[in-house]
Amino acid sequence: MYEQLVEEILQSKKGQLGRFWEYSYVRLTHAYKGWPEGTVFLKDLAIAGFPKIGRINSLEPGLREQFPSSFWMEEKVDGYNVRIFQYKGKILCATRGGFLCPFSTDRIGELMPLDIFSDHPTLVLCGEIAGPDNPYIEGPSPLVQEDIKLFIFDIAQLPTLEFLPQRQKQELICRYGLPSVKNFGLFKNNGDDLVKIKKILLCLHNEYREGVVFKEEPFGRYAKYVTAHSDLNDIAVLSHKIMDISPNYFIDRILRYILFLIDMGIIEENGWEEKLGKAFISSIKEVIRRVKEGGKSSRLFRCRFRNPQNAQYLIDHLKHIPGHQEHVIVKKFYKDKDYWYLEFEKIFPATGDTLRNWLSGALRFD
Amino acid sequence: MYEQLVEEILQSKKGQLGRFWEYSYVRLTHAYKGWPEGTVFLKDLAIAGFPKIGRINSLEPGLREQFPSSFWMEEKVDGYNVRIFQYKGKILCATRGGFLCPFSTDRIGELMPLDIFSDHPTLVLCGEIAGPDNPYIEGPSPLVQEDIKLFIFDIAQLPTLEFLPQRQKQELICRYGLPSVKNFGLFKNNGDDLVKIKKILLCLHNEYREGVVFKEEPFGRYAKYVTAHSDLNDIAVLSHKIMDISPNYFIDRILRYILFLIDMGIIEENGWEEKLGKAFISSIKEVIRRVKEGGKSSRLFRCRFRNPQNAQYLIDHLKHIPGHQEHVIVKKFYKDKDYWYLEFEKIFPATGDTLRNWLSGALRFD
Repeated sequence: MYEQLVEEILQSKKGQLGRFWEYSYVRLTHAYKGWPEGTVFLKDLAIAGFPKIGRINSLEPGLREQFPSSFWMEEKVDGYNVRIFQYKGKILCATRGGFLCPFSTDRIGELMPLDIFSDHPTLVLCGEIAGPDNPYIEGPSPLVQEDIKLFIFDIAQLPTLEFLPQRQKQELICRYGLPSVKNFGLFKNNGDDLVKIKKILLCLHNEYREGVVFKEEPFGRYAKYVTAHSDLNDIAVLSHKIMDISPNYFIDRILRYILFLIDMGIIEENGWEEKLGKAFISSIKEVIRRVKEGGKSSRLFRCRFRNPQNAQYLIDHLKHIPGHQEHVIVKKFYKDKDYWYLEFEKIFPATGDTLRNWLSGALRFD
Repeated sequence: MYEQLVEEILQSKKGQLGRFWEYSYVRLTHAYKGWPEGTVFLKDLAIAGFPKIGRINSLEPGLREQFPSSFWMEEKVDGYNVRIFQYKGKILCATRGGFLCPFSTDRIGELMPLDIFSDHPTLVLCGEIAGPDNPYIEGPSPLVQEDIKLFIFDIAQLPTLEFLPQRQKQELICRYGLPSVKNFGLFKNNGDDLVKIKKILLCLHNEYREGVVFKEEPFGRYAKYVTAHSDLNDIAVLSHKIMDISPNYFIDRILRYILFLIDMGIIEENGWEEKLGKAFISSIKEVIRRVKEGGKSSRLFRCRFRNPQNAQYLIDHLKHIPGHQEHVIVKKFYKDKDYWYLEFEKIFPATGDTLRNWLSGALRFD
C-alpha cells in the first residue's frame, strides 16, 4: 500500500529502514509529502508523526493571542512520547522519532488496559512514559517514584493523526480506565481564570513538575508552557554532559527560567540566582571530579522487561539512535522475580574528552 | 613591494581592502602564505597579525607541561589589542583584526611618549587599550577609572612580528617611559613558586582583574590564564545581548569559572553559585524590562578625540566590522575643552527581536 512512497522516501534519504520482531518499517527522519517527521510506515499501515507543539513564554498575552475563547489546561509530563497502536493483532509503541520501541512495547500491557483496541482497532493513543527506569530520559520524575508509568494525553483516529476532541477523549479514557495526564479543567480568557491558571502553575513549579499544555475548545490549537523548576532540572541533569549537548539548549533554558519567574511575578524573591548557579556548578563539579580520577561522563540506566529478547532489541535500537552509536555499554542482565533487568551505561564522550584535555595542561586555542 | 601578494589575497578572498586617512591597506581576514590573520599590508610595509595565545585551564599541570624551566608572569589586561608602528613619519595603530584604528591612532600621542620611534623606527609595540571610553569593549575595567589607558606587553622588530626577549623589552620600556602591563617576576616550576603564583592570581581575582600571561624564559612559549571573576564579568556584560553572541561563549565561561575555582581550591566556599546565577539574571532581567517597555538591547559608548575628522573615520570603521553593519547610531558629537566627544549607540538586534517575539504571545517552535 505504501510501497511506492516508502521507496521514494528511502531514495531521497528522508527516512530510514528499521526492524523490530518480524516487522520491518520505515521512519521519516524529515517531513515528506505531507507526512511529518517521525511517521512510521509499516507494510500496510502508516502512523503519522506526532505534531510539534508550540511554546508560549508569557501567559499574558500568550493565552489571549492563541486562544480567543475557551481552552483546556492539561499537565505536561516530563518523559518520552509514545504512539500506541494495534498492528496485526499486536500492540506496538512508536517513539517520537518513529522507532518501534522494544522497551515500551514489551511493557505496554502492564501500563494500560488494552481492551480499547479490541473495540476500536484504528485508534492511536498518544502518551508520555515517565519514571526512573526508562531507557531514554535522565533525571528524576516527580510523578513516578519507581519503574515507569504511562500518561495518555491524546487519542487519534487512523489514518491521519487528527486528535479527538477533549470530551470524546475523556469519555474513552474513563470508559477504558486509561492512565492519563491530569486535566485541570476548561478556562476562559479573563482575569479570574488567569489568576487560577497562575496558581496551578506555581503549584506545579513548587513540586518540580514540568508544566502544562493548553488545548483550544472547540478543538484546535495547542500551546505548551513549562515551569522554571523544569528548566532548572534540565540544566542540572544535562550539565554533567555539557559538551555533548548543543549550547543553545542551555541558553534557551536560562532565558525561559527568567521569563517564567517574571511572568509569575516572583523574580524579586530570593534564591533564584543561587539555584541557577547551582544547577550548573554541582553537576559540572561532579563530572570534573570524575574525570580527574580517571573516569568519564556517563549515566547508568536500568529497565525492566517481561520478555528478555526485547532487551536485546532495545540495545540494538539504542545503538541506532543518532548520536548514541557505540556509546552504550551493557553492564548487567539478570532475572529477579517476574522481570528481566537490563542495566546499561551511556557514555558522553565529548564532555569527558574535552575536560581531560583541559586538565592535562595542554594549550587551548579558543 | 607587496603589490603582487596583495592582489592574490584579494582575489582569493583572504583579505579586505581598507582606507584610513590617505592610506589604503589590506587586512588579512584569514591566514595566507605564512602571514597570520590580522596582518596589515600597507604599500611598502607589512605588520604581521598578533599571534593567538593558548590558554591553560589548570596551573598544575599546565605550567609544568608548557614551561619546563623558567617563565615570566605578566598581567593580562581586559581591553582591545593594538599594534603601534611608524609609517611614513606617522604613528598608526592596528587592531587585532587588522583595521587601522582611527580612535587609537588619534589618541596614541597622549597614551605614550612617541620618541622611541625616532630612535627605533622599525619597532612594533603591542599593547592593550582599556578604559570606559573605548569604542569596542563593553563593561568596566578595574584598572582604568576614566577615559582610556595603554598597557604595552610586547615589542617586536619588523619585518616579522617576532617579539624581543623580556629583558630587552623591559629595558626599552624603562628607557622610553612606556606604559606597560604589570610584570610579576620570573618564576620556576616548583611548589614554592606555585604557591606565590596562586596568591597573586587570587589577588587579581578578588580585584576583578582579568588574569595573566606566562612567558617562557629564555624566550619562547606563551600561555594565558584568567580569573573566575573575569569570566563572570564577561557573562554579566554580554548577557544583555545573549542572542547576539555565540552560545558557546557562555558555556565556555561557565566551565572556565568552575575550573578556576577548583584550581584555586576555593570551590567549596560560599557564594559562587549565587554569583554565577546573578551574572545571567541581572542583565537578562534588565533587557527584558527594556523590551517590555518598547526598548531594545543596546549599549551607549563614548570616545574622546583630538581631531574631529577621526571620529567620522571611526564611525565608518565600526560599520565595516563584521557583525556591526547598520547597528551603530551616532547620538551626540560635541567639543568640550580640549576634546571632541563622540557618543554612539550599538544595537544588538537578535536579542531585542527574539525577546519581543517571545513576549508577544506568539507560538514558538523550538
